[in-house]
Amino acid sequence: MSARHLLTVVPAIGWLKAYRRDQLPSDLTAGFITAVLLIPQGMAYALLAGLPPEVGLYASILPPLVYALFGTSRTLSVGPVSVAALLVANALAASGAVQGEPSYLQDALLLAAMSGLILILMALLRLDVLVNFLGHSVLSGFTSGAAVLIILSQVMNLTGIPAPQGGSGVDMFWAAIQRIDEIHLVTLSLAAGSIILLLASRSPFIRLLEGIGVSTGSATLISRGGPLVIIALLTVLVATFGLGDAGVAIVGAIPSGFPSPTWDFLQAERAMALLPSAITISLIGYVESVSVAKVLAYRRREKIDNRQELIALGAANLVAGFSGSMPVAGGFSRSMVNFSAGAVTQLATIITAILVGVTTAFFTQWFFFLPKAALAAIIVVAVAPLLDWRSAVKAFRYDRADGAAMLATFLGVILFDIETGLIAGVAVAVGSFLWRSSRPHTAIVGRLPGTEHFRNIDRHEVQTWPQLLLIRIDRSLYFANVAHVEQVVAARVAQQRDISHLVIICSGVNEIDHSAIEALEQLAESLRDAGITLHLSDVKGPIMDRLARTDFMDCIAPGQIFISAEAAVEVLVRDGGSDQV
Amino acid sequence: MSARHLLTVVPAIGWLKAYRRDQLPSDLTAGFITAVLLIPQGMAYALLAGLPPEVGLYASILPPLVYALFGTSRTLSVGPVSVAALLVANALAASGAVQGEPSYLQDALLLAAMSGLILILMALLRLDVLVNFLGHSVLSGFTSGAAVLIILSQVMNLTGIPAPQGGSGVDMFWAAIQRIDEIHLVTLSLAAGSIILLLASRSPFIRLLEGIGVSTGSATLISRGGPLVIIALLTVLVATFGLGDAGVAIVGAIPSGFPSPTWDFLQAERAMALLPSAITISLIGYVESVSVAKVLAYRRREKIDNRQELIALGAANLVAGFSGSMPVAGGFSRSMVNFSAGAVTQLATIITAILVGVTTAFFTQWFFFLPKAALAAIIVVAVAPLLDWRSAVKAFRYDRADGAAMLATFLGVILFDIETGLIAGVAVAVGSFLWRSSRPHTAIVGRLPGTEHFRNIDRHEVQTWPQLLLIRIDRSLYFANVAHVEQVVAARVAQQRDISHLVIICSGVNEIDHSAIEALEQLAESLRDAGITLHLSDVKGPIMDRLARTDFMDCIAPGQIFISAEAAVEVLVRDGGSDQV
Repeated sequence: MSARHLLTVVPAIGWLKAYRRDQLPSDLTAGFITAVLLIPQGMAYALLAGLPPEVGLYASILPPLVYALFGTSRTLSVGPVSVAALLVANALAASGAVQGEPSYLQDALLLAAMSGLILILMALLRLDVLVNFLGHSVLSGFTSGAAVLIILSQVMNLTGIPAPQGGSGVDMFWAAIQRIDEIHLVTLSLAAGSIILLLASRSPFIRLLEGIGVSTGSATLISRGGPLVIIALLTVLVATFGLGDAGVAIVGAIPSGFPSPTWDFLQAERAMALLPSAITISLIGYVESVSVAKVLAYRRREKIDNRQELIALGAANLVAGFSGSMPVAGGFSRSMVNFSAGAVTQLATIITAILVGVTTAFFTQWFFFLPKAALAAIIVVAVAPLLDWRSAVKAFRYDRADGAAMLATFLGVILFDIETGLIAGVAVAVGSFLWRSSRPHTAIVGRLPGTEHFRNIDRHEVQTWPQLLLIRIDRSLYFANVAHVEQVVAARVAQQRDISHLVIICSGVNEIDHSAIEALEQLAESLRDAGITLHLSDVKGPIMDRLARTDFMDCIAPGQIFISAEAAVEVLVRDGGSDQV
Repeated sequence: MSARHLLTVVPAIGWLKAYRRDQLPSDLTAGFITAVLLIPQGMAYALLAGLPPEVGLYASILPPLVYALFGTSRTLSVGPVSVAALLVANALAASGAVQGEPSYLQDALLLAAMSGLILILMALLRLDVLVNFLGHSVLSGFTSGAAVLIILSQVMNLTGIPAPQGGSGVDMFWAAIQRIDEIHLVTLSLAAGSIILLLASRSPFIRLLEGIGVSTGSATLISRGGPLVIIALLTVLVATFGLGDAGVAIVGAIPSGFPSPTWDFLQAERAMALLPSAITISLIGYVESVSVAKVLAYRRREKIDNRQELIALGAANLVAGFSGSMPVAGGFSRSMVNFSAGAVTQLATIITAILVGVTTAFFTQWFFFLPKAALAAIIVVAVAPLLDWRSAVKAFRYDRADGAAMLATFLGVILFDIETGLIAGVAVAVGSFLWRSSRPHTAIVGRLPGTEHFRNIDRHEVQTWPQLLLIRIDRSLYFANVAHVEQVVAARVAQQRDISHLVIICSGVNEIDHSAIEALEQLAESLRDAGITLHLSDVKGPIMDRLARTDFMDCIAPGQIFISAEAAVEVLVRDGGSDQV
């Protein structure tokens, strides 16, 4: 294997070789700050997935290390993320797994390993382009729907209402409403207090620190510790006042140390049942990770390789499954923290992983009295900004089809389930794209007097000729829209009876497929029977190259392909005709 | 209802009001000639559908009259057609109906009535655009596959091999091969003789007549009677030599007169079972009819109204069901005969219907000894030209995706069934269209020295500027391809480190959807972080109108939208920079 090839497979070699000593302090700081954020977040997302908290910690150790080796982003923070956690919870609830039973954890590991395999398979089959069809509208609708589901799933942890998990968003909402009298006020108070403190630890706290003379940079760094300080505070509170015995759900005993590598979860029958969910987890996790990675890469003019990302995230998830942890992806807010705390390479990630590892090995007993309400508060504060109202309004204002795709996804996700929402959204988006491209914009044009410019006869005072019809088509011609063009031509030909030449102006035509070629040939023949000659003009180079390989020119003869509409007019209106303005 | 509105609903009023006496001889001749062709064809297609021969005759009487009233084509000959007959046979075989039982006929009527309703519903919901997605490649693959199936379905009638009907094309083929020793030589001889005579009655016979001084026109007209003369000849042969007793399958007793109107076939359970087939029959029948109608309409500068055609064909099929006949459509070869025999209005169709009606009322006993082999020969000769090899080769040569769609349809139809073939073909066609549009052609461009033209830097010796990157995109931007564009930009930005301005040239961009807008805004922001300003140029008018309704201009500020690439260069390369050629 050549050095260059090795570098492609293990991009870490690149930054390791070029590592400069002066980069170390930055990476150390960023690694520490991200770890402080990741420890409570990891436990919270495990809770969201219905898993024991330590599974979220495990997911923050080995998988990020694997990504650090194979990933092309230098600052992406891979680990447990809220959306993947939600997908795991939904998949397992739908497949009949029961939280707390050993098989529930097994299935979560299976999902991680399967999505790892799927991502690697996608890399091998070069299917990375597939995710492009998850357009911005669908992703935005999905993210908002997922945020609603995530918040609903935390109702029990936030309020103490023993609402059953699972079912659609609407089901969860009604289940909670029906038992609203069972609300646990102490739990609710802890949750509300945590949310208020978490929000306060951001800009208000930073402004406070700045007020007492701390620099903005330092103030921002200090505020990152907010979640850890708050959970410490609440843990002490619960332990001191014995709130656990008063009905507040606490994390309880977390085994210290690490699980042994395992492959017990590999069961063919479960794998078949979980396959659709594993595909969703892979696609969504990949799209989320790559979009975050790209935003960060631009800032330092680095480059993300879509295919290598499939491999890196695939490997990270494969390792996640076999090392007893939940599916992972690149998290948006955590990566931003890592980046803005100064991470320059994945060494920051390695430091984070070491710190989380040490905590997992030695300090898990500290989390015994940690109330689940505090973790739920962390989740709610993290996902609330994902409710993207502004984007929805913008989309609807610009284009109803985009808005419809977004709304279909959102409603599908909260009324039915995540897969239904995604499929509905993609169907609406692809459907409206196809629909629109099947009705291309066409214009009958004439010449602006005294110029060589041709414009729509309905919008401009232009020169036309009774024996000549000029139609401009503003779209690539393909099987689904060529019939529409034929219809426009036929309607016009039936109206304007003196026509002897028809010119299709192809300045807006980027491609012509074979069905369209055949249709144009047939059109030329039909028009010839009616005494009309079909010509083209402004045909782009690549299309000319392809037409030259066919007998198209013979089929439309004596019709020609003119270099421009002006050239067509010059040749076809020889005697000047009776110009009409 | 205004007179104009009435004319839209009943287009026949148009040609009836304007009817000129001198048109009558033409319509009379065409009506007679088409009837001579239609009588044997109608019986043959009923046979193909697995129905008694009279059902094909009934389908040639009332349904064409209904079409004559409501249709917008003046020369389309509506009635039984080979492809619809095949679809009926396949649908009924797949749904478990048994040929010869009364319920088989009932189901055929139900199919006719249902496809009538579906077509009318499509007209009301304005879904005529849907059929555009049955592109030329798919239809061509379908037609070739249908021709193979039709010929295979006639093996029993042509050879006397008692092969079971139904199953895929391959099943039918193997079933016939396995019982090849049961071939009936007399039947085979009659079939072969009929085929030879039918082929001879075309151009060889016309040339013969011309040779003895008959005019080309008259010779062509006389040759139209070929099928009728040949079946008369074979009927006499079979009757004289008692070949019916020697094992030659004959048509047998056909009830004279007409069936009473019926609605016994309206059974909800069967309707549900046959719904997918009814949809296929409607779509295919409609597409076939309209494409024939359009070809004919062009020749006389008449106009076909797609929606009115849905209503006319819908009404014809609805009446077909309730008057005891099989589904109908506009037939290609028969319409061509009608047209070239001089039909100028649907009066020709009315005359044809009257002649078929008289025959059905009084002369059906003449067909008692008609051998089924002769009818099968008529079918084979009619459908053999549908095997469209040349089109397949052309498609593959021009564009592999078109060829693949055609092949997928063809193989799907003969290896599985018609619906599978159509769905596979449309999936391949739509899929490759989406795939292609998700990877738009982009070019880094520079200026041809001394001109205002900008060309691909890989193909031309052009002027470029280190601080300026010009990218031309040759496709509408939408959710599925904007990621590809981002990738191209990111790769280039990572390479060319001095860039401070990036201009996306939109001369080939006909539309920008909201996802693409958001992506461009995000790109502008990411580039800004990297010290690069994003600009657009050559944005088309309609896109500018829509962008003006958004805050896009604010989002890309200080980036601008230039009227042309030249204008961008003028502004952005103020000090001349260090030009590179």
